[in-house]
Amino acid sequence: MKLAVIAGRGDLPKHVVAAARENSQLKSIIALEGFANLSDYPNAKSYRVGEFGRIVKYLKKEEVTHVCFCGNVDRPDFSKIKPDLKAMFYLPGTIKAASKGDDALLRHLLGLFEKEGFQYVSPQDVCAPLLMPEGTLGDISLNDIHRADALSACHIAQSIGALDIGQGAVVARGVTLAVEAQEGTDAMLLRVATLPQALRGSAANRVGVLAKMVKPTQDTRIDLPVIGLKTLQHAANAGLAGVVAEAGGAFFLDKAATIDFANANGLFILGLPAKLES
Amino acid sequence: MKLAVIAGRGDLPKHVVAAARENSQLKSIIALEGFANLSDYPNAKSYRVGEFGRIVKYLKKEEVTHVCFCGNVDRPDFSKIKPDLKAMFYLPGTIKAASKGDDALLRHLLGLFEKEGFQYVSPQDVCAPLLMPEGTLGDISLNDIHRADALSACHIAQSIGALDIGQGAVVARGVTLAVEAQEGTDAMLLRVATLPQALRGSAANRVGVLAKMVKPTQDTRIDLPVIGLKTLQHAANAGLAGVVAEAGGAFFLDKAATIDFANANGLFILGLPAKLES
Repeated sequence: MKLAVIAGRGDLPKHVVAAARENSQLKSIIALEGFANLSDYPNAKSYRVGEFGRIVKYLKKEEVTHVCFCGNVDRPDFSKIKPDLKAMFYLPGTIKAASKGDDALLRHLLGLFEKEGFQYVSPQDVCAPLLMPEGTLGDISLNDIHRADALSACHIAQSIGALDIGQGAVVARGVTLAVEAQEGTDAMLLRVATLPQALRGSAANRVGVLAKMVKPTQDTRIDLPVIGLKTLQHAANAGLAGVVAEAGGAFFLDKAATIDFANANGLFILGLPAKLES
Repeated sequence: MKLAVIAGRGDLPKHVVAAARENSQLKSIIALEGFANLSDYPNAKSYRVGEFGRIVKYLKKEEVTHVCFCGNVDRPDFSKIKPDLKAMFYLPGTIKAASKGDDALLRHLLGLFEKEGFQYVSPQDVCAPLLMPEGTLGDISLNDIHRADALSACHIAQSIGALDIGQGAVVARGVTLAVEAQEGTDAMLLRVATLPQALRGSAANRVGVLAKMVKPTQDTRIDLPVIGLKTLQHAANAGLAGVVAEAGGAFFLDKAATIDFANANGLFILGLPAKLES
């Protein structure tokens, strides 16, 4: 396998690149303009999202056989995307797929690379150790209220996921405080931090749980939820008691530093399987 | 019927009070401290949420037979509520109901008034003309994209309502941009206004629809969704093409001014029944 990593925003691509480099599978890196920082990836090439033809040409020249997408990419403004010739050919189908939601768009884009002769490798195939383990991580255990909120937050996150709304939800004392759509997890947690103290917790009395779960209908080869140090920092700031993510279905980055932060600030971190006995 | 209106935040209580006054049913007004502005209600009494005993005593002295709740009231911080004796008696049950979500809490509070011998009258019983009519209001009609988004937004709003998350959702070109939980509609629309232009519309090219629908499991005697001038102003600011609300299941306040604003800014207003043929 000669692998190309196509990197979007965030920390996940850096971890995937490092793991692929270790396995000597890495052939090329494409840093998507406006999302990935070229300085984070020595020897990477930078292309715009609309340059699909140039990307394919480059990957073929490099004799790449497999591609892996990782990191966040905003939904494009198709009226401003400046497509090259090949992208223009695929544009009408892409716009149609995009109108059916995030999942349909991602699945469509993945299919375009397959049409061009590349095999797709998921980030978790490249880097399984980054996946969330099952059980409690760190020193903080859950009380009964936290446990009930964790289960409820998982249920809400999966339910809104089934509607292709998003992957995250915050529940505190049985009340859904916030649900993530296009704004992202950090913005959602900042919003929770502005809710009345009666609804959420505080540093002195931590209440409420963030859940990040895979959308039940999504293609798990792309766009798995991610938690890491920033997630815990935002959760702490919102007064939450902890974070739960899908075991084997979410990435957990910077594990040591994140667990240290959670321990120091009294937050739990919990991995739960997608299917829970009720 | 000798009616008391128990007023929370917002414009709905003012309309309900005006209608009840016209029918000569109005006996007393209670303006809840911290939520209703006492200056909006001549002859009203002001009580804290925790003064349930004093409220009941006052209503009995006034020979009130029926009560009507309207307007928003934040979920109380039970640790700071300073209950009087009767409220203290009911507090454990109220805290338990609150842990089951907004609907359970409201239904419980309504039950407490009934236990004390009052009959409950819904705001729509007092003021049916305020309810959202079916069909398009104003001069702006929907194109095919708007219509698809309106149907989708209604579906998402009802789906999250069934989970007791909230009553509102914004969908644009098939993508769920935002879902309302505890932050409220205005905060949700302000958030949509900060999303990338590629996702939402603009004043020049309006795209996206706000839907406000009744939660399928909720007690419709309390907490019906409300739209009005402010809703349309926030929707316009977010670049949306229009607002859809449940016909007969949402309040539409300040109709004339709101429709004028929508016409002037190119937004549609649409009332749709709860059950749509698909």
